[in-house]
Amino acid sequence: MKHVTIRALARELNLSVSTISKALRDSYEISAETKQRVLALAATLNYTPNPYASSLRGKKSRTIGVVVPEVADSFFSLAINGIESVMKAMGYHVLICLTHEQFDNEKLILKEFQSGRVDGVLLSVSRETLSGEHIRDLAAQDVPVVFFDRVLDEVQAARIVTNDFESGYAATAHLVENGCREIVYLGISESLSISNRRMEGYRQALADHRLPFRTGNVVACTNDAAENYKTVKKMLQRKAPRPDGIVASVEKLTTTVYQACNDLRLRIPSDVKVVCFSNLEIATILHPSLTTITQPAFEMGRAAASLLLKAIKGNNVMSAEMVIPSVLIPRGSSTR
Amino acid sequence: MKHVTIRALARELNLSVSTISKALRDSYEISAETKQRVLALAATLNYTPNPYASSLRGKKSRTIGVVVPEVADSFFSLAINGIESVMKAMGYHVLICLTHEQFDNEKLILKEFQSGRVDGVLLSVSRETLSGEHIRDLAAQDVPVVFFDRVLDEVQAARIVTNDFESGYAATAHLVENGCREIVYLGISESLSISNRRMEGYRQALADHRLPFRTGNVVACTNDAAENYKTVKKMLQRKAPRPDGIVASVEKLTTTVYQACNDLRLRIPSDVKVVCFSNLEIATILHPSLTTITQPAFEMGRAAASLLLKAIKGNNVMSAEMVIPSVLIPRGSSTR
Repeated sequence: MKHVTIRALARELNLSVSTISKALRDSYEISAETKQRVLALAATLNYTPNPYASSLRGKKSRTIGVVVPEVADSFFSLAINGIESVMKAMGYHVLICLTHEQFDNEKLILKEFQSGRVDGVLLSVSRETLSGEHIRDLAAQDVPVVFFDRVLDEVQAARIVTNDFESGYAATAHLVENGCREIVYLGISESLSISNRRMEGYRQALADHRLPFRTGNVVACTNDAAENYKTVKKMLQRKAPRPDGIVASVEKLTTTVYQACNDLRLRIPSDVKVVCFSNLEIATILHPSLTTITQPAFEMGRAAASLLLKAIKGNNVMSAEMVIPSVLIPRGSSTR
Repeated sequence: MKHVTIRALARELNLSVSTISKALRDSYEISAETKQRVLALAATLNYTPNPYASSLRGKKSRTIGVVVPEVADSFFSLAINGIESVMKAMGYHVLICLTHEQFDNEKLILKEFQSGRVDGVLLSVSRETLSGEHIRDLAAQDVPVVFFDRVLDEVQAARIVTNDFESGYAATAHLVENGCREIVYLGISESLSISNRRMEGYRQALADHRLPFRTGNVVACTNDAAENYKTVKKMLQRKAPRPDGIVASVEKLTTTVYQACNDLRLRIPSDVKVVCFSNLEIATILHPSLTTITQPAFEMGRAAASLLLKAIKGNNVMSAEMVIPSVLIPRGSSTR
C-alpha cells in the first residue's frame, strides 16, 4: 500500500505542509476546526506518521547536520570549527554535507535529513538555490533549520549573517580613498543574496563618491578557475577606461587576480589595487600582502550553533537574526 | 536544471544503456577502463541516479561516512571532492565528520557509525591515533573501512596511500642538488605513519648524499600556529650551523615559514630554500612561488571511494593497497 504523506494530506485539503504538520501535533497555532478536518482526512486515508521521523522524535539523535556549498573555502572551514566547538561541548555529533553549489544536491541532502537522522540543520544555501520548498519541508518535519552566512530570504528561519552590504561599501570606498576611479567588481551568481548585497554596497559607495556605475565593470565569475582566469585577464587588458581597482567578492578569485596581473606584468598596487573577501591566513604572505574583508567565520559558526540548540530545545527562534560585522584589513595590495 | 539520464550518458559515450547501467553498478562484466570513462562523464555531467529506483536494494542506508582530521587543509578538501564524484554517480550520500586530530573524537564518531547509519567508512586517522580497537569494532559490525592517506598499520584494512617515503626523499634530494647542506625537517606527531615515512625519506636522502643527520634538525610542530611560528623563527636564527634548506611536511607550515623568513629578513631562496608538502593552488602566487610536493588528493579520494563500494557490495578488499605517487613541482622557493 502506498504510504500517505503529510504532503498528500496538504494537497487534498489545500493547506500548507506546515499547517498539516502543526495540526497533527495539536499546535495552538491551528484552529480547532482545521485540526478536525486534518484528523478526519488522516483517519480516512489511514495516515501514519513516518516511523523513522516521528517515533524518534521523543528520543533525539543528538546529531546535527551542517549543509554547506564546499569546504575548500576558508570561511566554511572556519565556520565549521566554530559550530563544532559549541556542539562538542553539548555532546552533539556534527555531520557535514556538501552541495557543491548545486540545488539538486541540496534538495537530496535535506530530504535525507527528514528521516530523523538529525535533530536540526545549519544551512548555507548553494548559489543555485532560488526557492525554499525543500527547507520548509524539513522544518515541517520538526527539524529546525538555522541559516548562516547565505540565506534564502523567502524562507522564514533564524539567521546568522555578516554585514555584506557595508562590507561591499567599505571595500569600494577604501579603493576610492586610495585613488581608484575605475573599480571592477568580481561577483558570482546573481541569485545569491550575499553576493547581491556586497554588490549593492559597491554601487552605493560609487554613487556616494560621485563615480559612475558601469554594468561592464561587474564581472560574473563561475566555478571554473580556467574560465575565470580568462575573464579577469580580458577585463584587465581593457584599454579605456583601464580598471585601476578590483573588489573580489569570493576568496578563490585571489589566485586568479594575482596570476592574471603577474602574467600581464601589471603591478599590484601601483597599476591596480585589490581588495578580496577572504579569510585566508596566507593573505599576509602574498606579494604584496592582500587587503581583505575578513568575515567573522568562527564566531558566525558559534552563534548559529547556539541558536540551533535553542531551537532543538523547543524555543521558537524563527525570527531571530544576528549580524556579526566583517572587518576590512588594509594591507599592501591597496595602498597608494 | 535538466536531469541527466543513463540514456544521455550512453549516447555521449556511444555505449548501450545496459553497459552504462552495469558500469555504474560496478558489474564485473564491464572493463575497468569503461567504468572509468562512465564515472568520469557521470561526474562531469552531474548525473544522479533516480533515488527511488535505486533504494530498492536491501536495506542499505546508501550513505557512507568520511572521517578526516580537518578540512582546512587543501589535501582533505580535494580528496573529499574525489570521494563525492564517485559516490554521487552511484547515488550515495556522503557524511563528513571531523576529528580535529583528536583520538577521543575519532572513537566517538566511529562508535556512532556502528548504529547502521552508514554502509561504510573512509578514514584518515588523527595524529593521536595509536591503537585500532575502535576501527576493528566498526568492521566487526559489518561496516567496511577503507583507509586513505593516513593509515594505522596495526589494522588490516584496504588502503589508498601516496609514496610518502619517496616524496620525503625527493624533497630533500632536490634541496641538496640545489646546494643546501643544512636541511631542517619540519614534522608533526611522531605517531603519524605518513609523517614518519616522509622523515625516513629525508634521512635516507641525507645518508645517500653523505650529509649528517642531526636530531636538532628535526623540528616537531603542533596544532598551535603561534607556537609553530616561535619554533621556526628560533630554528632559523640558529648561528652555526645555519639552516639553508627547509622541508615542511605539512601544508599549514607554509605561512609560518614565509612569515618567519620575512620577519627575520631572510631571503627565499638565496638565504634559505623551501619545499612544502602542499596542494595549495595559491603556491604559484607566493613570492617567491613555492616548490611543492603535490599529492594526488582527488585521485586518492576517487580510488578510496571505489574500493569502499566494492567492500560494501561484499567483496573482500581487506588486503588491497594502492599507492598513487605524489609529484615534486619545482618553483621559485628552491632554485639556485
